[in-house]
Parts: sequence; structure tokens; C-alpha cells
Amino acid sequence: MTKKFVYSFKEGKADMRSLLGGKGANLAEMVHIGLPVPMGFTVTTEACLNYYEEGEKISDEILEQIFKALDELEKENGKKLGDPQNPLLVSVRSGAAISMPGMMDTILNLGLNDESVKGLASVTANERFAYDSYRRFIQMFGNVVLGIEHDKFEAKIDSVKAKRNVTQDTELTAADWQEVIKLYKELVKEETGKDFPQDPKEQLLMAVEAVFKSWNNQRAKVYRRINKIPDTLGTAVNVQTMVFGNKGDDSGTGVAFTRNPSTGEKKVYGEFLMNAQGEDVVAGIRTPKNIAELENVMPEVYEQFAGVCKLLENHYRDMQDIEFTIENGKLFMLQTRNGKRTAQAAVKIAVDMVKEGLITKEEAILRVSPDQVVSLLHRRIDPAAKVEVIAKGLPASPGAGSGHVIFDPDEAEELGNQGQKVILVRTETTPDDIHGIVMAQGVLTSRGGMTSHAAVVARGMGKPAVCGCDAIKIDPEKEEFQVGNLTVKKGDMISIDGATGQVILGDVPMIDPVLSDEFKELLGWADEVRRLSVRANADTPNDARVAREFGAEGIGLCRTEHMFMAVDRLPVVQEMIMSDTKEEREKALEKLLPFQQEDFEGILEAMEGLPVTIRLLDPPLHEFLPNAEELITEIAELKAAGNTDELEKKQSMLKKVRSLHEFNPMLGLRGCRLGILYPEIYAMQVRAIFKAACKLTKRGLKVEPEVEIPLVGHENELKIMRDLVEETAAAVLKEEGVKLDYKIGTMIEIPRACVTAGEIAKHADFFSFGTNDLTQTTFGFSRDDAEAKFLPHYINEKILIDDPFIVLDRNGVGSLMKMAVKSGREVKNDLMVGICGEHGGEPSSVEFCHMIGLNYVSCSPYRVPVARLAAAQAQLKNK
Amino acid sequence: MTKKFVYSFKEGKADMRSLLGGKGANLAEMVHIGLPVPMGFTVTTEACLNYYEEGEKISDEILEQIFKALDELEKENGKKLGDPQNPLLVSVRSGAAISMPGMMDTILNLGLNDESVKGLASVTANERFAYDSYRRFIQMFGNVVLGIEHDKFEAKIDSVKAKRNVTQDTELTAADWQEVIKLYKELVKEETGKDFPQDPKEQLLMAVEAVFKSWNNQRAKVYRRINKIPDTLGTAVNVQTMVFGNKGDDSGTGVAFTRNPSTGEKKVYGEFLMNAQGEDVVAGIRTPKNIAELENVMPEVYEQFAGVCKLLENHYRDMQDIEFTIENGKLFMLQTRNGKRTAQAAVKIAVDMVKEGLITKEEAILRVSPDQVVSLLHRRIDPAAKVEVIAKGLPASPGAGSGHVIFDPDEAEELGNQGQKVILVRTETTPDDIHGIVMAQGVLTSRGGMTSHAAVVARGMGKPAVCGCDAIKIDPEKEEFQVGNLTVKKGDMISIDGATGQVILGDVPMIDPVLSDEFKELLGWADEVRRLSVRANADTPNDARVAREFGAEGIGLCRTEHMFMAVDRLPVVQEMIMSDTKEEREKALEKLLPFQQEDFEGILEAMEGLPVTIRLLDPPLHEFLPNAEELITEIAELKAAGNTDELEKKQSMLKKVRSLHEFNPMLGLRGCRLGILYPEIYAMQVRAIFKAACKLTKRGLKVEPEVEIPLVGHENELKIMRDLVEETAAAVLKEEGVKLDYKIGTMIEIPRACVTAGEIAKHADFFSFGTNDLTQTTFGFSRDDAEAKFLPHYINEKILIDDPFIVLDRNGVGSLMKMAVKSGREVKNDLMVGICGEHGGEPSSVEFCHMIGLNYVSCSPYRVPVARLAAAQAQLKNK
Repeated sequence: MTKKFVYSFKEGKADMRSLLGGKGANLAEMVHIGLPVPMGFTVTTEACLNYYEEGEKISDEILEQIFKALDELEKENGKKLGDPQNPLLVSVRSGAAISMPGMMDTILNLGLNDESVKGLASVTANERFAYDSYRRFIQMFGNVVLGIEHDKFEAKIDSVKAKRNVTQDTELTAADWQEVIKLYKELVKEETGKDFPQDPKEQLLMAVEAVFKSWNNQRAKVYRRINKIPDTLGTAVNVQTMVFGNKGDDSGTGVAFTRNPSTGEKKVYGEFLMNAQGEDVVAGIRTPKNIAELENVMPEVYEQFAGVCKLLENHYRDMQDIEFTIENGKLFMLQTRNGKRTAQAAVKIAVDMVKEGLITKEEAILRVSPDQVVSLLHRRIDPAAKVEVIAKGLPASPGAGSGHVIFDPDEAEELGNQGQKVILVRTETTPDDIHGIVMAQGVLTSRGGMTSHAAVVARGMGKPAVCGCDAIKIDPEKEEFQVGNLTVKKGDMISIDGATGQVILGDVPMIDPVLSDEFKELLGWADEVRRLSVRANADTPNDARVAREFGAEGIGLCRTEHMFMAVDRLPVVQEMIMSDTKEEREKALEKLLPFQQEDFEGILEAMEGLPVTIRLLDPPLHEFLPNAEELITEIAELKAAGNTDELEKKQSMLKKVRSLHEFNPMLGLRGCRLGILYPEIYAMQVRAIFKAACKLTKRGLKVEPEVEIPLVGHENELKIMRDLVEETAAAVLKEEGVKLDYKIGTMIEIPRACVTAGEIAKHADFFSFGTNDLTQTTFGFSRDDAEAKFLPHYINEKILIDDPFIVLDRNGVGSLMKMAVKSGREVKNDLMVGICGEHGGEPSSVEFCHMIGLNYVSCSPYRVPVARLAAAQAQLKNK
Repeated sequence: MTKKFVYSFKEGKADMRSLLGGKGANLAEMVHIGLPVPMGFTVTTEACLNYYEEGEKISDEILEQIFKALDELEKENGKKLGDPQNPLLVSVRSGAAISMPGMMDTILNLGLNDESVKGLASVTANERFAYDSYRRFIQMFGNVVLGIEHDKFEAKIDSVKAKRNVTQDTELTAADWQEVIKLYKELVKEETGKDFPQDPKEQLLMAVEAVFKSWNNQRAKVYRRINKIPDTLGTAVNVQTMVFGNKGDDSGTGVAFTRNPSTGEKKVYGEFLMNAQGEDVVAGIRTPKNIAELENVMPEVYEQFAGVCKLLENHYRDMQDIEFTIENGKLFMLQTRNGKRTAQAAVKIAVDMVKEGLITKEEAILRVSPDQVVSLLHRRIDPAAKVEVIAKGLPASPGAGSGHVIFDPDEAEELGNQGQKVILVRTETTPDDIHGIVMAQGVLTSRGGMTSHAAVVARGMGKPAVCGCDAIKIDPEKEEFQVGNLTVKKGDMISIDGATGQVILGDVPMIDPVLSDEFKELLGWADEVRRLSVRANADTPNDARVAREFGAEGIGLCRTEHMFMAVDRLPVVQEMIMSDTKEEREKALEKLLPFQQEDFEGILEAMEGLPVTIRLLDPPLHEFLPNAEELITEIAELKAAGNTDELEKKQSMLKKVRSLHEFNPMLGLRGCRLGILYPEIYAMQVRAIFKAACKLTKRGLKVEPEVEIPLVGHENELKIMRDLVEETAAAVLKEEGVKLDYKIGTMIEIPRACVTAGEIAKHADFFSFGTNDLTQTTFGFSRDDAEAKFLPHYINEKILIDDPFIVLDRNGVGSLMKMAVKSGREVKNDLMVGICGEHGGEPSSVEFCHMIGLNYVSCSPYRVPVARLAAAQAQLKNK
């Protein structure tokens, strides 16, 4: 059986997108619903793949089908390609299933040659138009099909203009264009060694082949890589009868959206030009007019056009992006497609369409991309602003901020306290810098990755951060940084965008996040649909309140270490770490207890009536001490100054720092390993949790603490820690005379925990996947090192499709998670399982969590709406 | 139904060990085969467990059974316990299923009281003997049952001696002992508030209860923890009629082994004392005689004894450890058990017994513990030597060595070249120290774990190393180290034992390893039985030859990085790393090529006809550069000296070191990640492998190279590297005009590789489990950090039963391995799978590898015989 490689527009349908490409399928659909479309046909994506299979050759079978389709098109139009009397002209356009800039776009006026141009001149009674069209065709064809540089054509026009002593194209006459055509043809001969093809069928085949070839040009390949489009789709080719918007004052062309793509407002939005071709609208030589004005210019056409817009929207049940041409007062539709829109517009359009009865709530939920709405949830740089990007680092903590460059945290704190806006710029940050970060608008570091101290702390505080920006060379002594040839000095104003990693010179206008009423309504619908619960990762009462406002149904991860790093506590924490005996340690811990209790009271109160998972201390202790190099410097200074008391203190601190040194701290003494070696630390934290819970319970508030043990790899670890928590909690509850339900569970963040989840589940009321660490250990990647050293290369080379720290690796990490859920629930069928890694707010990862039956996802407060939407989509997509 | 808690010796059998304990079962067995055994009964281990279940109370049911058994024993002996005329005396001994020091051992002469002592005196016509026996009983009972300190009893004897003005116990008369008894009874009353129990039945029950209690005393618990004996076994109690070896010159007592437990020689080995009790032999007051002399002393008894030895050996089909007593010329057997023996004896006895037809070859294989034979395979400290252990570190590389302490590697090299023996002592070592390690007898470091540079390099060179010995405080400036109060200076002689981690002051005698003929024969039998193939990890031709001599059937892991670290190559490797461009790097690599080729020629030639797995470069590049602190010092010195050329070089090296710095190098840019970023490095190595292989093939040798890609976590990594290897190999084979079969495979050492093994298998001819790294990533343990910081605590607290870096963690790491084997073979059913982590030479791990169907294990050359034996045992145990 012969395969069908060519479809007339009359044969296609909208759902044949993968075969006909988006453009071809929509043209066919418009024909199908009776809209005025210049007729034509589509050479399929399969023909493109066949072309490559045949070693870059259009097979005879396909040739035959193309010519047959052309033959029918000629009959329909009553014109013939290349006819010297009344020639048919066609456009040739590429059109893949997924819209893809970078491929060859368009050849217009195909079919013109030395003879048919005369026919065009006589039929249109416009010789200048005909010869201008012909030279445009030669130029376009010469450039995109024959590969001759654009400038060489322009040089020929310039030479004729010089000869005629004119400066504008419009001043050239039909005769001048004829001379240009002669020069163009000579140029083609010179460059290609061949004459410009006069046979219109040869022209057509060459154009089709050029489209096929453009599928694999560099720009298209790069675009596919970036946008994760498979290389195996191929592109279709659309051959369509030309219509002319430049045939006089009753002709014109335009583009329009059926609703405002920026705000979502229900009003046709677009522009048009009379007596012009499409490229003139794009080129920006003449200023197009607002589409509304068309009503005045051509009321009947406008009415027809408005009707078409409505029809198309109703037909496609989505906002459309339309191209049209008016030829001698007759409207032709050249393209329709679902229109791109901003996040704000996407939300509004989806909600409005539900209210208009056009789509269901479920469809509305699926219409809005969770990735896109992220931008609605953070302060951001006004997209309309013109900015000067001077460098790019890792987008370490979303949001944007502007301020004066400050290199010293003390100074940042001081200026911040004075109400000045500062951006703290450091090679990397340490706990000693916290007071500076607190008072800064944002942090910029030249070293460190997505889990560096600066990144983690900034995300915790909801402050923007750009990290690992190695293009900036910081000179702390001169208090300036270099980026390329530019020197930015202390006090200079910069802005950073933590969502994109951009570093921008100067102050820039910002937009604050707002949850529009439509967005709230949409999220309400999402809540009705989703099965996954959504919690937030929050370490402070303020974070908790924000999270609750954004719809969080609990805290899935409250990290206690950030509380330790607060400026008033760090010295006590350091005292605890410096202790030589358990007794000394307990004395220091006793001082920390009231602080911790206060923290927990705040958070538990903010989340009253909702569960709060509190993770006991996780990071290695050395993270709370200054680093060795800093101490060495300080010691040298103290020696010089003869300050012996302080000197001794710093020296013993250096000794401790050295004794705590680890080769791979990520795999060292941290998590529950700390709790097992120093049970007094965990005991203090548990006491603080339950003292806080009792106090609130006595006030009549309902609190639901869930104590979480980090980094468990063996059931015995959890067993011992569970005993400690239970004993400590029982003691406090007895002291306070309070009865309280609480849970004890564990992070699952070590491969061994996944593999032995059945054993671990015996001692756990809940599991929470710590997918940041689980990804690190499953891949054997240290995130900071991988993202700095080889992950970008891996993603460039498509070794990995996504950064697994951003999008959950379903095959590897995901398999382990699945295994853990299954064997955990085999032992305890009501085991509550959630996720609290950063993946908890990433849509594809949320979908996976839904698929493997988790109870909840937990993410940063500002990601909660994203997760609510993604969870609903997961439910709808996986019914 | 009533449970039977008490068994007469006549009722028991050898196979009732778990119920009767080892001692009880063997006593019963001896009765069963008709040997002269003083009659008695055993209270079972179940009675012990019942005692604890009942809240530390002997239940009525058990009491009843004990008294019934006692009743029968009295009838058999024709004597009654506590009879004032002719009393029955019994011993009470503990006896668990697994022999266990630390529990209460023995109470003798039970049944004596103020009345029955008179009967004993009259029956034996020896008043002094009777009262001495009574006071011994009170003392023993008072100590172990009533818990009164031993010294308090000794003080009473001293007071009587002082009164009598004598110094020796032997000078005390019957009357004196009577006075001692009076004082003892007062002491008991004083200490316990109660009279010394006169009722023999009460004595008996108290003794039984004391045995039960001793199951849970501190020493017993510790012993069980160390020896991994379950706490739930319980101990039995043996009550046996007393016989007396101290009744005169026709009485005596002794212990003997049926063969020499030290050499295995087939000759009864032991000692005896006439007119003595068992405790006198042990106490060492009199010197016992060689067992052979008994023939002269009591020829008939000796003949009977020799017959019993033979009978017992034949009966138990193993060498026996026997206790006996002669009472008035009559031989009594008090105990028999399989005798403990040295590795050498174990091997000889097993092989001899096969030749004697006593056991099968399979039994012989199972008789020898693979762990034990390790000691036969390394140079070791003569166990007979008296040594002064001054510190203990990690047993990082087995073997032993003595030499002068040297702190500087250059000096170590110089002295080594002069033929002096040195031990290199360093805080930790770096690649710059290699030349010193090469010339040293061994390495001692104060920092670093089992995978530290020193440990890995030493193991690679087969040199002893003790690492992480933090008891020694090195002062490099003074060139000395402190350990406690001792100062060891440069040039002082020390010895190290890398198998135990001991550091010893002075030179000590050593024993060289020899494979005895018997051992070779046993290994030959093992080879016939085992299904697992055994390969060796070897990086040099010399290692390969040693491995082959020890029976290796190939190289399972040839690490190429140690070749890079050789002193003549390191500068070229550093040049390669310092290169800024690919071209520069390739130039340096070109210089390395001939070195690598030579290495591979040597190894492939040594293993001619056998497969050799060569792993491409694995460690992070910074391992080949000096560390930052060293460079900083050097730079400061060069600055002072004004040596600008060298200064610049070192400064740029420091810059490189800093740019290569990683937070967690274990999880950073290493393994195939290097190969993907710098394909030219791997390409050079592959060229060297195939040039070497071609050269040997042309010489007519058969070579089987297997190229191994390390650290693969995603199939795409292996796919890309496989292409590189295939292309490079094809080019070399074409150049050389040689045809050659080879394999390409991968290490499986990342959890993700296990989980996605099905995908990876598509591109692999073989898998080799790198269980060192797999254990690190599965547990989330950095070995160096874990072993230094928390693993010891984990093992002490029984959180982990074994160090997972030594004994493969079957539940966690093992599950992942099983998964990988299964899904790999589903895709490729003939996929060859091996293991090359250090577990490959550890018996329990070898067994697991057998159970999950691996094709081979690979271990260090000196472990090959261990693995051969363990593999055979695995086959026999898992038929």
C-alpha cells in the first residue's frame, strides 16, 4: 500500500498535528469549519523523516504525490504555476508538530520566473508590484534555499539606487527592479555556479527540500535541546496559494489574539497595516494600527473578522493567535494557533472561559502551567524594564532585589539598620555572615551552588540569591568586583534576579506578587480535585504564616538548624560545640532551650490545627563554626595585637574546627548520627518542642507536632532515636500535666533507607522523602560540586535530560522511592508518606509523587500554589 | 504436658547442644559411648530462659525435676548429698551452646556442711583434705554465689597464718582450716546478713540460680556482643558427681588435645599433675608434666586414656580438647570438646583426617575458617615474641614490618636505597610521598582511615600500614612523636602490625608466609567444589604474579591511577592536569602513553591466557597535585628565596588546586565523569591498553583485556564511553593489523546503577560491583569520616553488627546488588558479574556473592586463597 505523504488542506484535521505539523493541521481545520483560507496542501512530517531515511533525498513516491496535489491546487485556483498569463503563486512554510523557531520559515511568491512575472504584471495591472515581488522571491529563495548571504543581495539594490541617485526602495521603478533582478540572477550564477531556477516545479521541490534540511540546522537543534523536543519528530511543509495584502488600499494584513495575551482581558488584541504584506508588519518600517481601527477602515471585513475570532475561540475552546490578509476587500485566514500568554493572562483566560461555559473547571486547571505561575509568586523585575545584564549565576533563591553593593556583612547590617538597601556580595558566605544577610535585599556569591550556605539561608529567609556567579571577580581589599572590563565598586547600585540568576547594573523597577482573585478561584478548583495534600517547608513563624496564606495544609519540614544560626544564638551554639564534656554541653543546651521553645511556639501557633513536622538537628557541627582560613587570619591579627584572651579562644576554636574536619561532610557526622553520639542535643530540642506544645495546648490551641529524625539508614538508628523522643516527650507531658497526640517519623534520604524501608517503617509513624540528599546519594553527586563541575556539560550533551536536583529522576531516585513506599506500607498500611525536598514544588516531580501514592508534598511557601495546581493536574492526568 | 527441663547424662546426646549446652551434651555423649564419666545431670538452657521469663525465679516445675534428678543421682552413687557419714559431693558448672568465657564457671565440693565434712574426713581418712575442701567450697560459693570479694576470704586465711606464725597454706593443719571455716562463716553472716547455707539442697539451688544469673553479667554480655552471640540462647547448668584427683599418689588430673593444636601433628598433646585438682594445673603453682610421661607413671591408665582419645576423635571426627581426673587409679573423663587450634593446625588436621578416611574432602573444606587462614598469608609478628605495644591504629594494610622511624619521605627513600629498614611516619600521606613509601617497610599515619591515601597505596604495594593512629602526636619539626609519656625519636626502631593495627616499640621477630603442602592440597579440593571464580585486584606485574601463584584466575581490578602516581610519571600527570587546553593536555598524555603501555604489557603478560579487567582513571584529579597547605608553605619559601620561576609555577599550581577543590570529592568530578569531560585521557589509556595487547599478541601470547568504566550511574555515560573505547580500540587494532577479542564493562558502585542496571546492561559486557563506593553511597557514609567519627560507636552500641566496609551489608547494599544482577541478566542473560571491592576477599561477603549468582570475586592477591576457600564453603553451605 502506498503511504499518504501529502494532504490537501481539505483532507486534514486539527488532531493530525503530529503528521501535518501545527500550522498545517490548523489550516486544514479552518478549511474544515468553512473559514476563508487560501487553498493548499501539506507535505507530512513522515515525508521529512523519509527524506532523511533515504539519505537526504525526496523519494519518487513523495515527488509524485506533491505534483498530484499541485495539479489539484492549480485546478481549484484555475491558475497554473509559472503560467505566463495568470500565474499561480504559492508560499512554502515549515510547520512542525511543536512550534519551533530556528527552522526555515517562509518563502513567498514561489512560481515567479522571467515569464510568469509578466503575467502577474498584466493581471494586477501593476508592473512595479510584479517585479518587486519577483526580486523579493529571488532574494528569499537565494538566501534560504541557495544559502547566499542576505547582504550580497542588499548590495545589489544599493548599487542600483546609487546609479539612480535615490536612497529609498520606494523610489525605485519597475524598470529599476528589473535591473535589480538581472543583477540578482548574476549573483546567483556567481555564487552557486548555476542559473536561478526558472522551472517553478524545480523551485517548489528545492524549497521543500530546504525546509526538510532546516529541521537539522544548528539553531533548530539547539532549540530542541533546550526545549527537550525529540529529534525524531520531523517537520511538515505547507504549500499555500499566495494572497496579497499589498494590492492596494482595499488590501491589508494583520495579526491578532482573540484575547489580550498579556492581561487576559476578553477583547481582540492585535494590529494591522493596509496595503502591506505580512513581513512589513513584522519589519516595523511602518507603524501598524490597533486592530480596533479596522472597524472604521473596513467595517464589513472587521465584522467578518470578529466573527471568525469568536468562531475560532469557540471551536478551539482556547484563545487564538491569528494571521490574516485582506486581498481586494476579501478576508483570508493564514494561520491560527493557541496563543502564547503571560501567566496572569493564562489564569484569567482559563477562569473566564469556565464562567463563559466554554471549558470545564478541570480543563481550566490543565490550561495553566504550574511552571509559569511561579513568576506570579515572587517579587520580580518588571518585564517591561530595559536592563543591563552584566553576569549570570545560579538562580539560587527566587525573587529580585536591588541595592548598594556591600562586601562586608557588618557594614551590610549597619546600613540595613539605617534603612539603606544593600546587596551583600561575597565569595561565599558562612554562618558568621547571617546578620549581614538578614539586613540585605539579596545575596550574590561568586562560589557555591544551589545548596551552598548562601543559597540555603536565602531560600530559608525568602530572600533572592544568585550564587556561584564566577564571572564576577571579587577583590575584598579594594572592595570592588570586576566583571569583564567593568568594575563595580562598593556602594554602586546593582539588582539581582534570583529566579533567572541575572545580575543587573543599577536599580530596576520591580513588580510585587499578588494572588489575583482569578488565581485564587482556580486554586480553589484545584483543591477540590487534588488527592495530594500540600504542605510548606518553613522555619519561622513568618514563613509559616505566608505558607498558610498561600494555602499550605501544614508544615512538612521545619529545619531547626536555621534557628541555631540566628545571630543571638550562634555564640551559645558555638559554646555547646566547644564543650569538652557532656555536662558542659548540657549547660550550653540549657541556654538554648528557651530560644528553641520560643521558635516552636511561634510556628505551632501560626499553624494551629495543622500538622507541623519538626526535623531535629541535621547539619554537621562545623557548619556553626567559622572556617579555618578565617580563624587563621583572625589569630594572626590577635597575635599582632597581643590580645591573649581572645587569642586563646580562637586558637581552641581552630583546633575544634580542625578536629571536626571531614573529607566528605555530606556523608559524615550529621543527621541522626549526631543525635546518637550526642543524645543531649536532640533531647533538648524535643523538650523545647513539647514545652512549646504544652504551653499552647494550655491556652486552648490545637497543635500537632511531628518529630522527624533525619538521615536514617538503618532501623536501629530510628529505634534508638524514637525511644529518646518518647521518653523525653513523656517526661515533659507529665511535668506539664498535658495530654497530646504526636507523631514520630523519619526523613528517607539515604538509598539504604529506601531499600530497607520495611524494617524502618516498624519504628515510624511517617516517612518524608528528603529528595535533595536522596538524589545526591543515589547518583553519587555532590550537588555543589556537580553543578559547578560537570552537570551543565551532562545536560548540554543530553546525558541527562534534566538537572535531577530540579526535576525528580523518576527512573533512579523515583524507583527507590516507589520501593520505599511499597515496602513501608506493607509493614504499616496507613503509613503517612510525604516529600520535603525541593522537588516537592516542581510540577513533574509533584506528578510523580501523586503517581506513587504519597500523602503530601511539601515545598517552600512561595511554591505552595504551584504545588496545589500541579497536584490537581497530576490527578486529572492520571485518572 | 510437662516440659523436660532436666536431663540425666544418660538421656542426653551430642546433638542436643542447644538444649544441654556444649559441655552437657558432650558429657552425655561420652556416657552414651560408654566412657567413664562421673554421673550427673544437666538443667537445660530452656530452664534458664524460663528463669528469666518468670522474673528471675526458678519455677516449681523445674525445682521438682532437679530434685528428682538429684534423687536418682544419689541412688546411682549410693551416697546422699549432705550425708554426715559418706556424703555425695557435686560440682556445678555452666555450659552454654557456644563456649563463652565470662559466665560463672565452676563450684566444686557442693554438698559439704558442718556435718558432712566429718563424713568426708572419715571416708577419706584425711581430715585436713576434708576441711580444706570445705573451706574451698565456702570461699568459692561465697564469692560466686553470694558475691563476697575474694580478698576478704584471703584476709581471713592471712590472719590465721599470722596467728600460727606460718607463711604457706600448706603449713596449715586441719584444725587451722577449721578455724578458717569459722571465720569464713562469720564473714558470710556479716556480708549477707544470713548464715552460710547448711542445707545442701539450698546450696544446689542457689548455685543453679547463680549460673542462670551469670548469663547476664557484664562480662558475658560484652563477650556476646563482641562475638555476635544472640542474647536469647541461655545457659545450661551441669551438676556432676565430684571425683578427686588429690586423693593421693594414685590420683591425678590433666588436660590434653588429641592432636597438637599448634602444629596439627597427630600426637596426643597435653599435661598432667599427680595428686592434684584441676585448679592446681591451671594455677601454675606446680609445674605439670608432659602427657607422654603418664605412660611411665601409670601405664594402664595411660593406655586406657590413649584409647579414649582415639575413640573420642573417631566418634566426633575431629580433634578433641579433653579434661580428665584419676581417682585412686581410676580414670574419669570430665569434659571433651572440639579443640581450638591455630590456622596451621586447622589446615593440617583437616587434610590429615581426609587421608585417614575420617572425614570427606567437603568436610575438610568446611573445617578451616577462611578468616583464620588470613594469618598464614602475610608476614607477621612471631606470636611467641614478647612485644611492647605502645599504640593501636586502624589495621589499614595487612602484614608486619620493622624499621627506623623516619618522618621525611625523601630521607626514607635515601635510607631505603642504602639498604636500611625504615618505617615512614606521617600525619597523612600524599602522592608526593610515594617515593618514600616505596622504600619503606611500612607506613604509620596519625590521621586518615581505611581508604586514606596511605592505606590504599600501601595495600596496593602489599606493604603493611597502620593508619589513623591518633594516639601518636607527631612533631615534624623536632622529628619525633609522643605517645602517652613516651617520646619516639627519628631513628628509633619500631614495628607495626597492619593486620591488628598495633604499633610496637623496637624490632620484633617475624614469620614469613608459606603455603604449606597441606594448605595447597586443601585449596585444590576447594577449587573442585566452588562455582565462583576467584580473581585478584592487582595494579603491577609483580602483584599479578603473586596473585597467579596464589591461584587467581584473572585480574578483576587493575587500577590505573596508581601507575599515574609512580614517581617518574607524576610530573607528567601534573603537567597534563595543569594544561589549559585540550591540545596541551593531549601533548602531556602523549608522554604518558609509553609508560601506560609498558604497565599494561607487564600485567597482561603476567596474566597470559587469563582475563584482565583494567579500570580507566577513577580518582579526582586533585589527588595528583600537592595539597593547598603544602603549596602555600612552598610559595612562602620561594618568595623569600626570590626564586621567581619556580614561584610562578607553584602559584599557578595552587590556583589549579583551588579550582579543583570540591566540597565532597567522593561525590565529585571523578570516574567516568572525568572520561566524559576529558575524553582524551581515557582515549590515551585505551590506546595504551590495545597497543600493549597487540604487541603481546604479535609475540604469540593470548591476552584478554577487559576495559572497565568506573562510577557509571546512567546508561548514557556508559554508552558514550563504550563508543569511545570501541573507536579507539578499532583504530589501534587496524594500525597494528591485529585481531583481538575484548570486553567493555562497568563498575557498579552507585545506587542508581543498581536501580537502573537493566538500562546499563544494554551497553555492558560485564558488571563489577565496586562495593567500597557502593557501601559509601548506599549508607551515605564517607568511609574515612565514618570510621573516624561514628562507626566505632555504632558497632559498640550494636546499631550495626558489622563494619559494612568489611562485611558486606546484605540487607541494604546486598539488596541493591541482587536487584542489579537480576535486572542486568534479564536484559542480557549471559552478563558476567563480579565484585572487586574489598569485600571480595571477606568470607561472609563471598558467600553472599555466591548466593546471588555472581560469576567471580576479586580481591587483593594475598586474599586469593581465603576467597578460594570461602567460595567452596559457600557452595557447600548453600547446596
